[in-house]
Amino acid sequence: MANTDPLYMQVTNDLRSKINSGELAPGATIPSEHELMEQHQVSRHTAQKALSLLTSEGLITAGQGRRREVRRREPAAYRPQEELLPRAQHPEMDQFLERFSNEDRAPRQDISVSVLVPSLAIARRLGLAPEDLTIVRRRVRYLDGEASYINDTYFPHSLVKDSEIADPRDLARGTLRILQDLGYRQDRILDEIWIRMPTNDESERLSLPPGTPVAEHVRTGYTAEGTPIRCAVSILPGDRHVIALEFDMPADWT
Amino acid sequence: MANTDPLYMQVTNDLRSKINSGELAPGATIPSEHELMEQHQVSRHTAQKALSLLTSEGLITAGQGRRREVRRREPAAYRPQEELLPRAQHPEMDQFLERFSNEDRAPRQDISVSVLVPSLAIARRLGLAPEDLTIVRRRVRYLDGEASYINDTYFPHSLVKDSEIADPRDLARGTLRILQDLGYRQDRILDEIWIRMPTNDESERLSLPPGTPVAEHVRTGYTAEGTPIRCAVSILPGDRHVIALEFDMPADWT
Repeated sequence: MANTDPLYMQVTNDLRSKINSGELAPGATIPSEHELMEQHQVSRHTAQKALSLLTSEGLITAGQGRRREVRRREPAAYRPQEELLPRAQHPEMDQFLERFSNEDRAPRQDISVSVLVPSLAIARRLGLAPEDLTIVRRRVRYLDGEASYINDTYFPHSLVKDSEIADPRDLARGTLRILQDLGYRQDRILDEIWIRMPTNDESERLSLPPGTPVAEHVRTGYTAEGTPIRCAVSILPGDRHVIALEFDMPADWT
Repeated sequence: MANTDPLYMQVTNDLRSKINSGELAPGATIPSEHELMEQHQVSRHTAQKALSLLTSEGLITAGQGRRREVRRREPAAYRPQEELLPRAQHPEMDQFLERFSNEDRAPRQDISVSVLVPSLAIARRLGLAPEDLTIVRRRVRYLDGEASYINDTYFPHSLVKDSEIADPRDLARGTLRILQDLGYRQDRILDEIWIRMPTNDESERLSLPPGTPVAEHVRTGYTAEGTPIRCAVSILPGDRHVIALEFDMPADWT
């Protein structure tokens, strides 16, 4: 049966399957427009369309004067359960973390602290009135000098205003322990993960290549009584992270 | 201090903040190029650039002859823990599920079953040799006729070949119960969530608008002995889903 896909799609599919199979490995040079025209006997427009589609799928670099390459994908494991369970529970997670480890990359972070009226979405999660203040600790984490992710954590100003949380340095004790000492122990967590394109501001802070979506991980922490005490918003570039979770089936599951 | 952003960015930021604040609500008409040119005293090229940026951020529709609108964002909650804990555990999750509920939308699904040699990535997760067969149950789930997500689940052929899993109908008992009856009880789960742009095939199956990223949720289930028994790959369009999780802090956490 003849292949009835449009020509540019045939070129795209050929390159995509070579990338997915590893025949074209991360960092490998992609054929130029001219080479694709010869190899596939297609027009320049068709070759361009195929390359542009692969760029928008995030599989190859944008070129911009240089030869295009297969994008490197060496994501780091991001484990939402680390806060409650510092160690992996299952052997499968151990293996996964080893495979997507960052241990040999040098970490660094920028921190700034400010007092502000948060967005309505944050105020709502923290149970605040629209004009109530929060203290926000903003961090960008880097690995080997490359921006890894953004983490901005909001605290109700009335709860933490006299604590070290307002100190714009790394806190040896951690904010959860400080909250606990203030009488607000985090008992439970609600996590939301939103998948979207980055805002321009996020693209700049994270130096994102075109066509790179992000996960927005919003974690709200509550006391046993249901008082929200923090809201942490992390922006994870999709090309640098894989979110990993582990669960047990309940013993009585049937 | 004068605003030193490029002009197109000033237009973009103005529209984006109106969308994020709700002043331009989902479904609202976006000013035309001509209206933006007049309102902001900018060139057509600048107006086009601003609209194109907002489209690529997924905030407005692509137009294509019609007036552009603020994209509707009525995501449905997707709860990875539902398989192990059918009911929400915390009051905060109850409220969240109510807010992002789908209960009043009519569900439907297409199922097909095939026997095939899976990709290397799936074979690796299932601990199979490269030429080993799997049975795959492919589903597209719809809500009110709109594609909601793809769910393709792979089972090692040698484990399930004589069971109902090869039956291309909805299975009243559920595949986990069938596996359990075959002597393979799912004891634990490893979840991976990858954030990326869709492939062309996914865009078609899900009728995705341009600039819509997806989450690829890969769930591998293991027996207590560590035998992988299934690998479920779900493709969740970012504009239709929010992933929700809940956790308890361990009682002994300090």
